[in-house]
Amino acid sequence: MRLLIDMDGVIADFEGEFLRRWKTGHPEKEFVPLDERKGFYVREQYPSEYSEFVQEIYHSPGFYQNLPPIPGALEALTEIKNSLNNVFLCTSPMLPKYENCVLEKFHWVYEHLGADWVNNIILTRDKTIVKGDILIDDKPDVKGSSDPEWEHVIYDQPYNRNIKEKRRLTWRNWKEVLNI
Amino acid sequence: MRLLIDMDGVIADFEGEFLRRWKTGHPEKEFVPLDERKGFYVREQYPSEYSEFVQEIYHSPGFYQNLPPIPGALEALTEIKNSLNNVFLCTSPMLPKYENCVLEKFHWVYEHLGADWVNNIILTRDKTIVKGDILIDDKPDVKGSSDPEWEHVIYDQPYNRNIKEKRRLTWRNWKEVLNI
Repeated sequence: MRLLIDMDGVIADFEGEFLRRWKTGHPEKEFVPLDERKGFYVREQYPSEYSEFVQEIYHSPGFYQNLPPIPGALEALTEIKNSLNNVFLCTSPMLPKYENCVLEKFHWVYEHLGADWVNNIILTRDKTIVKGDILIDDKPDVKGSSDPEWEHVIYDQPYNRNIKEKRRLTWRNWKEVLNI
Repeated sequence: MRLLIDMDGVIADFEGEFLRRWKTGHPEKEFVPLDERKGFYVREQYPSEYSEFVQEIYHSPGFYQNLPPIPGALEALTEIKNSLNNVFLCTSPMLPKYENCVLEKFHWVYEHLGADWVNNIILTRDKTIVKGDILIDDKPDVKGSSDPEWEHVIYDQPYNRNIKEKRRLTWRNWKEVLNI
């Protein structure tokens, strides 16, 4: 069994950190509470006149590196690695502004999971051409140039609850769902 | 047809740049001429007492970003992209010292090939789990956790000429070899 695991929104709390920085940096502006976040892209849920401020947050140096781990994720990854040989972190860089995100994703893995896991990072915009049995990803629809081999199991987040036809999990129930 | 193309030693001249810097930085020390390079890892062909100096060169900031393109590579990539939809740059980061190499590979692609190609970078230590028909790589033996789907076509270099059982090409004869 080969497991592919996305990073942002699955093991690293992109949405939580975004909201924290938004409230701190723009205390006078409205915000979208986490449980009201709809749609995958945070930028699309904020008024268009705020678009530049929204992007400024996740393009800023240190944003990716300082994402807090999603509760339970690090413990789950350690358990998974103990029982499976083939586990990869399969993550897409932010483009076109990749300057901070690419290296910071590596730093994040190194700091939170250690050097061994850095070996198992796959950085790709097209996850459909990576071989695996299961991809755990919070994105509602993971598309690319190929018919993927893997089953997409949704990592449950408020913004993907409109997807009904896929299995979903969190780091609280992953063992039951994946039957590992 | 999906083509995967390695970077160092295939489109970016790692060995040439290493030797240029070695001669400049250590003019008093012996060097291995390019056509006498044997074995994939340059470090292993230099005396072990030079190991630290050798690594210092390719771990230094700017090394990866300033690799000259291998002659003919950029023109070939442009032609390939005009005739194939699925072409990916499939490259492994230097580990454990990934600090410069990871981001600089992205910069290299952006600067030499443009933003579109940055979309098609796959950074992975395990190329065997990437789906493709052909992988063009200068490494004699590309191993990983899976039986690869692709045929490994060797990019011809002095240090891989001991491999006889695989097809090989350069950017001078790639069209005939690949029949594209």
